[in-house]
Amino acid sequence: MADLVLAVDIGGTKFAAGLVGPDGALISSERVATPPGGDAEALWETLVGLVDGIGSPEDVAGVGIGSGGPMAWPSGEVSPLNMPGWRGFPLRERLAGRFPGVPVRIHNDAVCVAIAEHWQGAGQGSDNMLGMVVSTGVGGGLILGGRLIDGGTGNAGHIGHVVVDPEGPPCRCGGRGCLEAVARGPGLVEWALFRGWTPGSSPQGEGLYREEAAANGRRLALDAAAGDPVASAAMVRAGRAVGVAIASATHLCDLDVVTIGGGLAQAGPLLFDPLEQALREHVRLEFSSRVRVVPAMLGQDAGLIGAAGLILAADRYWAPR
Amino acid sequence: MADLVLAVDIGGTKFAAGLVGPDGALISSERVATPPGGDAEALWETLVGLVDGIGSPEDVAGVGIGSGGPMAWPSGEVSPLNMPGWRGFPLRERLAGRFPGVPVRIHNDAVCVAIAEHWQGAGQGSDNMLGMVVSTGVGGGLILGGRLIDGGTGNAGHIGHVVVDPEGPPCRCGGRGCLEAVARGPGLVEWALFRGWTPGSSPQGEGLYREEAAANGRRLALDAAAGDPVASAAMVRAGRAVGVAIASATHLCDLDVVTIGGGLAQAGPLLFDPLEQALREHVRLEFSSRVRVVPAMLGQDAGLIGAAGLILAADRYWAPR
Repeated sequence: MADLVLAVDIGGTKFAAGLVGPDGALISSERVATPPGGDAEALWETLVGLVDGIGSPEDVAGVGIGSGGPMAWPSGEVSPLNMPGWRGFPLRERLAGRFPGVPVRIHNDAVCVAIAEHWQGAGQGSDNMLGMVVSTGVGGGLILGGRLIDGGTGNAGHIGHVVVDPEGPPCRCGGRGCLEAVARGPGLVEWALFRGWTPGSSPQGEGLYREEAAANGRRLALDAAAGDPVASAAMVRAGRAVGVAIASATHLCDLDVVTIGGGLAQAGPLLFDPLEQALREHVRLEFSSRVRVVPAMLGQDAGLIGAAGLILAADRYWAPR
Repeated sequence: MADLVLAVDIGGTKFAAGLVGPDGALISSERVATPPGGDAEALWETLVGLVDGIGSPEDVAGVGIGSGGPMAWPSGEVSPLNMPGWRGFPLRERLAGRFPGVPVRIHNDAVCVAIAEHWQGAGQGSDNMLGMVVSTGVGGGLILGGRLIDGGTGNAGHIGHVVVDPEGPPCRCGGRGCLEAVARGPGLVEWALFRGWTPGSSPQGEGLYREEAAANGRRLALDAAAGDPVASAAMVRAGRAVGVAIASATHLCDLDVVTIGGGLAQAGPLLFDPLEQALREHVRLEFSSRVRVVPAMLGQDAGLIGAAGLILAADRYWAPR
């Protein structure tokens, strides 16, 4: 079994761990809810319990970790935005202590999703790809020349803070008009509520999805699908902003393909149609007009598969300098 | 002498050629005006005359070419925007025919400038750099992980078509609100003239720079320096747009440093002060706030030095796939 890799995915709502084979297939996995309000050691104990159920140290050839950022990279002290219990927590080092003698590597969770889509998913065969996650945040990872781009501090791929409207809404980063400020689920929900959207109010939506009346991005997409005009306008707003950001990224990086995953991508044409329209208005040069935007393929397993790629396809995805 | 490289820089206003030593020093160079309206062979003969005066085939270890785009890359059929006489002209192949047995390589002229600034100029020591040229157009080249990024078709680095205002002015690329549409010299001149700028009209400007009353970017910068309010506003407009585009590029690529050359960069603080102000409003994350923007160092020799880098520092700057 020593050609298997333990993959770990650390998020604000769940921890996941799994075993990944050398071909990138996820063989087994488990997930648990992130303990809300947990302190550093409570979070760690939860993770240990999860990991111990997956594999023993002698069984794995390495450990790959994807975690919400920010983090010190590649050393792996993490301070995930939605997990106040971990601030500068030495996650990589702690796991390395439990798995002696094998490589233990970490990267941003959105970067791991991009790795997965490039290695095993919708970006296979492209050497120049942006992998995006559009959800409660907007993140990404960048593959250029067939290799993961880390940037100076491991933070390359932050498409969520590409500026799509310099006079746009304030962003939680402290800036203004970032893609994330416009297109993140909670931002869209706020925008729609302010304009009179009542979650679950559209006739079809009410009948079909009664169970979900919460004001969240998924409800917004469902109401848009059911014809609610404000919810639909919110999805157009998100899609156009994503399209503009992709146009900028394509011109800067000469991309072949962009994959889009995350909750909001589930909205399908409600997001992708306005996205394509805005994108095509802005990519008019021969080289940029060839960019393709495709839905991500790997769903919620992407984070684990990509984390394993840090070990199993290190020639392409692991090159800290 | 066979460790010298012949460098060639093809632009709409001038052709330049020179010999570059293995350490990147420009040893000799010549330039001639681009024949206006020249057909394909007239342009070629002008180039041959220039190159023959610089070096013989037996004297050089290779030929590096920077040329205005677009071009097919790496094969090197060029169609420079401002040289209608060359459309799909096999520039690389033609020069290879005159220099048999040595490598003959080509890249976009703004990419060569970025290579030069990274190799020998203001970007030395950084592994993650954007080299920009802000002039009658806005171009650039991207170095990430210490290596030139080509992108899928050799067009990475097109910072001029990063979108800074989705509702901004039409761009000659066919899009809208590109950095180049806002900040290129002729665009600024048009913007200022429309708002009542009279070139050379500011009191100090009239006295100091009487010789230059043409409505061009240089005149605009001079009048701004002399206190003309509309000219000053145009420089603020340009600087802010460049700052926003750099913020986007920094978030996407986790840059250490951005170098800025080209005619408009000569305006100094008139451009760099509003640039810095807009940039700092938008780079608020720890990793992005560390980006530095510096003037390019190599001036008009940069294109030749960078072209030579395609041969002399090929491990970093030449990797077509």
